[in-house]
Amino acid sequence: MKTEAKFYHAGCPVCVDAEQMIVDTIDNERFDVEIVHLGDDKDRISEAVNKGVKSVPALVVADQPFHINFGASIEDLK
Amino acid sequence: MKTEAKFYHAGCPVCVDAEQMIVDTIDNERFDVEIVHLGDDKDRISEAVNKGVKSVPALVVADQPFHINFGASIEDLK
Repeated sequence: MKTEAKFYHAGCPVCVDAEQMIVDTIDNERFDVEIVHLGDDKDRISEAVNKGVKSVPALVVADQPFHINFGASIEDLK
Repeated sequence: MKTEAKFYHAGCPVCVDAEQMIVDTIDNERFDVEIVHLGDDKDRISEAVNKGVKSVPALVVADQPFHINFGASIEDLK
């Protein structure tokens, strides 16, 4: 069974670069990455916050948030 | 041929978590990740700086630096 990973972003240039890197490098045999655009899908901001996401872009794997560079604060997406 | 990726860190707890995530998730069939401890290997700080690394932990793939969370500023490692 694949492990779920979630990539949260907001469409910013920093986000796009990070998304490209994640999609390129992640082992797709073992991980399913869901890409969540929090600008388009504001209903999921609270889900991201609950996982510890403080800024985008961020990758959540195994319930741990990894903030990758800095695009925007999650506060600014609300 | 595998693509080279470099993970720069300084042994801090944030670094260890990020290293674990990278080692877990990266596609080892396509990427060779070199782990560089800049605390132990201060000679390579300038290499990291030249690649655009501003803080650790950071992953450099395809000449692009991705800062993952924040452990320490590169300035503080010098």
